[in-house]
Amino acid sequence: MSRTAPAGTPLGDGFHVFDTTLRDGAQREGITYSVTDKLAVARLLDGIGVGFIEGGWPGALPKDTEFFARAAAGELELKHAALVAFGSTRKAGVNVEDDQQVRALLDSKAPVVTLVAKSDRRHIERALRTDVDENCAMVADTVRYLVAQGRRVFVDAEHFFDGYAYDPECSLRVLQAAGEAGADVVVLCDTNGGQLPVQLGQTVTEVMARTGLRVGIHCQDDTSCAVANTIAAVQAGATHVQCTANGYGERAGNADLFAVIGNLVTKLGMPVVPADSVAELTRVSHALAEIANIAPDTHQAYVGASAFAHKAGLHASAIKVDPDLYNHIDPVTVGNGMRVLVTEMAGRASLELKGRELGLDLAGRPDAVGNAVQKVKDLEARGWSFEAADASLELLLRNELSELDEPPFTLESYRVLLDHRQDGAIVSEATVKVHVGGERVIATAEGNGPVHALDAALRQALRPHLSWMDSVELADYKVRILTDHPGTDAITRVLVESTDGEHEWTTVGVHNNIVEASWLALCDALAHKAMRVRALA
Amino acid sequence: MSRTAPAGTPLGDGFHVFDTTLRDGAQREGITYSVTDKLAVARLLDGIGVGFIEGGWPGALPKDTEFFARAAAGELELKHAALVAFGSTRKAGVNVEDDQQVRALLDSKAPVVTLVAKSDRRHIERALRTDVDENCAMVADTVRYLVAQGRRVFVDAEHFFDGYAYDPECSLRVLQAAGEAGADVVVLCDTNGGQLPVQLGQTVTEVMARTGLRVGIHCQDDTSCAVANTIAAVQAGATHVQCTANGYGERAGNADLFAVIGNLVTKLGMPVVPADSVAELTRVSHALAEIANIAPDTHQAYVGASAFAHKAGLHASAIKVDPDLYNHIDPVTVGNGMRVLVTEMAGRASLELKGRELGLDLAGRPDAVGNAVQKVKDLEARGWSFEAADASLELLLRNELSELDEPPFTLESYRVLLDHRQDGAIVSEATVKVHVGGERVIATAEGNGPVHALDAALRQALRPHLSWMDSVELADYKVRILTDHPGTDAITRVLVESTDGEHEWTTVGVHNNIVEASWLALCDALAHKAMRVRALA
Repeated sequence: MSRTAPAGTPLGDGFHVFDTTLRDGAQREGITYSVTDKLAVARLLDGIGVGFIEGGWPGALPKDTEFFARAAAGELELKHAALVAFGSTRKAGVNVEDDQQVRALLDSKAPVVTLVAKSDRRHIERALRTDVDENCAMVADTVRYLVAQGRRVFVDAEHFFDGYAYDPECSLRVLQAAGEAGADVVVLCDTNGGQLPVQLGQTVTEVMARTGLRVGIHCQDDTSCAVANTIAAVQAGATHVQCTANGYGERAGNADLFAVIGNLVTKLGMPVVPADSVAELTRVSHALAEIANIAPDTHQAYVGASAFAHKAGLHASAIKVDPDLYNHIDPVTVGNGMRVLVTEMAGRASLELKGRELGLDLAGRPDAVGNAVQKVKDLEARGWSFEAADASLELLLRNELSELDEPPFTLESYRVLLDHRQDGAIVSEATVKVHVGGERVIATAEGNGPVHALDAALRQALRPHLSWMDSVELADYKVRILTDHPGTDAITRVLVESTDGEHEWTTVGVHNNIVEASWLALCDALAHKAMRVRALA
Repeated sequence: MSRTAPAGTPLGDGFHVFDTTLRDGAQREGITYSVTDKLAVARLLDGIGVGFIEGGWPGALPKDTEFFARAAAGELELKHAALVAFGSTRKAGVNVEDDQQVRALLDSKAPVVTLVAKSDRRHIERALRTDVDENCAMVADTVRYLVAQGRRVFVDAEHFFDGYAYDPECSLRVLQAAGEAGADVVVLCDTNGGQLPVQLGQTVTEVMARTGLRVGIHCQDDTSCAVANTIAAVQAGATHVQCTANGYGERAGNADLFAVIGNLVTKLGMPVVPADSVAELTRVSHALAEIANIAPDTHQAYVGASAFAHKAGLHASAIKVDPDLYNHIDPVTVGNGMRVLVTEMAGRASLELKGRELGLDLAGRPDAVGNAVQKVKDLEARGWSFEAADASLELLLRNELSELDEPPFTLESYRVLLDHRQDGAIVSEATVKVHVGGERVIATAEGNGPVHALDAALRQALRPHLSWMDSVELADYKVRILTDHPGTDAITRVLVESTDGEHEWTTVGVHNNIVEASWLALCDALAHKAMRVRALA
């Protein structure tokens, strides 16, 4: 059996960063992890040095059973974290040895087990339909049995805060039963998420004083206070925090792992993960969003793309002087970066700063900057947005500076044909007519959808003339319907992220026709690559 | 001049819910309000009974100047809120009477003014390039001048918490200068958003004791604690909270108005808005997201579509018995509702509960439910999601129960032609061949884009046969690219929200061809309407 405590983390077993993305996080509406996803998530979390990774509920969910089997078979080697299986205590009136779910926990081979226990008398009586004595016996029997089998056991006291407010003695008895039977940590869970930090901190202090047990905290975000509640609990003495990546979880979600780590490390000076992990938080947060297939929250604290983005014209000029006066931490600490947004509010100062970021010398070109500001304003009024499309903005700026050569190609026309045939087959075919390298080229290609076909036809036309054509790949393709004009005739904004294996760049296209919007973004993507190729030549 | 205090709110002038969506919220990346938008936002906010609406910065932003002009001209009649203009103090070394920006505040005719004042010595010296004496004189002069002109004045002490930690005496002097000159509230701003609730609460207590002034709070969400910090400040004695709708704001955003109101009303028992407003929070939150052109955060506390959505199979069965054990408040309180999500994790119990929600009797039909569960699982594995598409799910369930009649029409084939012509014109044209009412119908129509054209052709084909056809409109159309398969050949999920003026329903379609995915969702939308028409007949 492998490790039961964190390894290589500065505070060792003294403070637990316990991640439950794969169990409680998977309850989020919209998340469906495959087993391969789960293994990838666990590796990323281990990479930033969390102490525990709760992998799921073996025996209850087939995918989770398989996850633990594949982990035990060697597919998951953890450097820092101990692997945790989640499960419930034995059923009422059943011997613990005979309980199938408890058996599944042992079979999972996970060295650490988190048992969920009811700790609210109403839940014991109304949902579990048993009494407090039997509930405590269920907790104690199961903890004792698993400990005897060599497992380290934590107990999640479900609905603890509501239960403690309703009948404190009952809730404390459940904790005591767990502690006496050998549980290492009792985790106070705000399962319904209704707590606020001041009261929650007081309860944690009180519970620790009355039980003498090691206390953990598990918060849901229903009051928008999950992170604050977690931090308040730590300040009250909790030494085990249960979080999920990006706050994924049921309803409003859980305490966000990245904000909790960010706060503990940068605000409270607690080195809860290895020092070199902190700068990985942004990258890992985004990678985990990708695996969950959820667009990253651009406004997420610490790790969001906008977390250090400044829009205000007021600030933009002052930021040039003293960036550290306008950020609560140096964004680089958490692997993020400062950005200045180009918008109508920011005006000239932001655009100049942006130009500097892009390596353009705008200082002596007030007219060009003025024209660029005007152009950006006009386009934004029509639904364009350059905030995420640096490459398109750079093309626009360089164009105003007359720094651009001829575009790599010009379009004469394109046509896309999309057939849903009588036999059910669906075919997309595109023809482009372009001028490239002094020639007129016509090319036709098929694709899965209209944009795919158009992209394929364009590549076919350009390939003989542009040697770098095949190095450029589409990394991501995002569509946003601008709901100013509801219905299918709405304006469509397309963001295309391209990569040549070395760089990534994003371009934008806007049109009320989604195919044309995509075409504009694709053209910018290739124009940007061509510009860089020429600059290097 | 109009009102300077909240009207018709239970706590009157004793507690201020101060909304700054139109000023600080507009700093959020991606938000661009038109003047008409701003007027609509203000009306919605007034409708839920906030006490103050900060409309913008007249004189600095032309749109804001126009907003105040149109408001003063009678386009904005506020029932509850007082209108506030935001601006800065006079410039260093300038007479207050001669300061253009101060003049613009008076010209705005807003009865209340919020002045932003530097309260961090580093900002005074390094960004403002003046000294503490002159800074305090700037604050005092401007407050006194505006008060003399009949305005009520609040002072936003910018960067207060960082400044207070660095040089408390300097920060307190700024507050005192504001208070002595006649400011009614000094607002402590966590401008960089780096605070945590416990410390912030202590600082508020300390500042109130040392100054004796009425204190407000303005929090940014950079530690993911803006809501918690706001609540902690209120618990420490602050009686004025500055928030933005949905937490919109620069970087990680501001304290979310809806979570703050939800917490104050339901957790702390403070009736900070009129009693009948609380049930409007969800509707208004979503309406404000629409105006901001930002997809509502489904996981937002209190008002998110998922805020009371339960996915866990474990819970789903218990929720049937006792819903109030699983929600921190009754969702109806804030105008939200409980939902049970149908997913692989929830299984049979959830689907049965969902069936009950839809008015289907599934109890005696275990086979049909089993088949439906299997079908949902298979489709979800291929990228479908029924969590937001109740109408498609209902069709699937009724189909398994053999309760559906023939579909209203069947497709033979369709063809979409999309031309970007040499003259730059872009034309989309669709032809559908369908069987409806025993006839084969062929129809062709044009549209702005491929889906619009297809929708138009289908309507044209069906109109003579389905009398209700024209009552059905598309209310919203959402596209999500599933990034399992990056690039333009990714799988596309389309959600279509339809309305017949009376009901709204959502359907889903998934395909690697965006047009076919849209087609599937459109067909479900019409099939659902046909089903309801038959049920009523």
